[in-house]
Amino acid sequence: MLTVALAKGGLLKESIRMFQSIGLDFSAFLEPGMRQLQIVEPTGRVRALKVRNGDVPVYVEYGQAHLGIVGYDVLKEKRPNVAHLVDLGFGGCRVSVAVKNDSRYQSALDFPAHMRVASTLVNCSREYFHDLDIPVELVYLSGAVELGPITGISEAIVDIVETGTTLRENGLRETDVLFNSTARLVGHPLSYRLNQDGMGDVVEQIRELVTAKV
Amino acid sequence: MLTVALAKGGLLKESIRMFQSIGLDFSAFLEPGMRQLQIVEPTGRVRALKVRNGDVPVYVEYGQAHLGIVGYDVLKEKRPNVAHLVDLGFGGCRVSVAVKNDSRYQSALDFPAHMRVASTLVNCSREYFHDLDIPVELVYLSGAVELGPITGISEAIVDIVETGTTLRENGLRETDVLFNSTARLVGHPLSYRLNQDGMGDVVEQIRELVTAKV
Repeated sequence: MLTVALAKGGLLKESIRMFQSIGLDFSAFLEPGMRQLQIVEPTGRVRALKVRNGDVPVYVEYGQAHLGIVGYDVLKEKRPNVAHLVDLGFGGCRVSVAVKNDSRYQSALDFPAHMRVASTLVNCSREYFHDLDIPVELVYLSGAVELGPITGISEAIVDIVETGTTLRENGLRETDVLFNSTARLVGHPLSYRLNQDGMGDVVEQIRELVTAKV
Repeated sequence: MLTVALAKGGLLKESIRMFQSIGLDFSAFLEPGMRQLQIVEPTGRVRALKVRNGDVPVYVEYGQAHLGIVGYDVLKEKRPNVAHLVDLGFGGCRVSVAVKNDSRYQSALDFPAHMRVASTLVNCSREYFHDLDIPVELVYLSGAVELGPITGISEAIVDIVETGTTLRENGLRETDVLFNSTARLVGHPLSYRLNQDGMGDVVEQIRELVTAKV
């Protein structure tokens, strides 16, 4: 059965709405008290798994899901071996460098060598500072990166910014944008090439939907 | 100021209760709607940071927190450079291998070579199967590992088990226990040796408290 991996959290609602537009209803995931991590939509054609954002490409890479919806930030950080099929447009955010409001640095270019930078996205950060030729010391944190400059574990952070509220609430300001991110439809490369379980039709429907919107 | 890093989630309540027993009140973290990640207790002597379980040893390793409370499972998985000071006794759980109820394997020793095992604790798992001389293929998932055998991404999992309810609800059974875990008090090694900010007294009070209970 065609299987899609959906990311929990911010992308879930929009992902479900998009599948509804092509006649696949996974809205059961949004019912209160719903604990199941796996459902089949009412027509019985397609199964959906609800997994963590970062685990979506793992399920697709191992072929346990034919398709997945995941943020570009995850793809850029983990570089999984999946086919990037469609830019879905929703789930917009950016990955930015931020420092304390009262920091003397206006841009990452001002950062001194060996400054500490905390992030959940250490690969993206490493690449960015490497390209600027600024050797920084990266501190991997699994969450609440905005706490870094407050506690002093790092002078700067690289983090996902949606509205900027979290930064403002923690007395931080953005200095640089590494890249912009949106939700992407990804697929298992071989399954896509072989059009397993009618995967190609679904991809084509989603592609048309997205193109119609633009 | 003496700073302690507390783990969010399951260990938080017990950690706060323990500090209350030695006259340090961080119960403000438990107030509904509390969003601050950093507070100073009423006497103004000690500051606490509320961070993710996995980030506690990072804060301690970098010396941004003198002390931290974290599960032994995290210490065993990440091997951070921190001093293990006191076994606090609470937060008990075990790290176990589990398979589907109808699996033909009774123990990890029955696993065929190159079987897939999903886990958030890939270092602990690698070491365990290496010691058994069973070459398995480890799949790192960031959460909801119990979904592994259901979706077919892996035949077995290695996961943290508290009551066993999650395993039962997902049709899984334990085959082997890798190790038992409890909450540990850890410290920044150099700060501890130099007794910075009266750190030694706090450690001694906690040690006496734990010894008295046993």
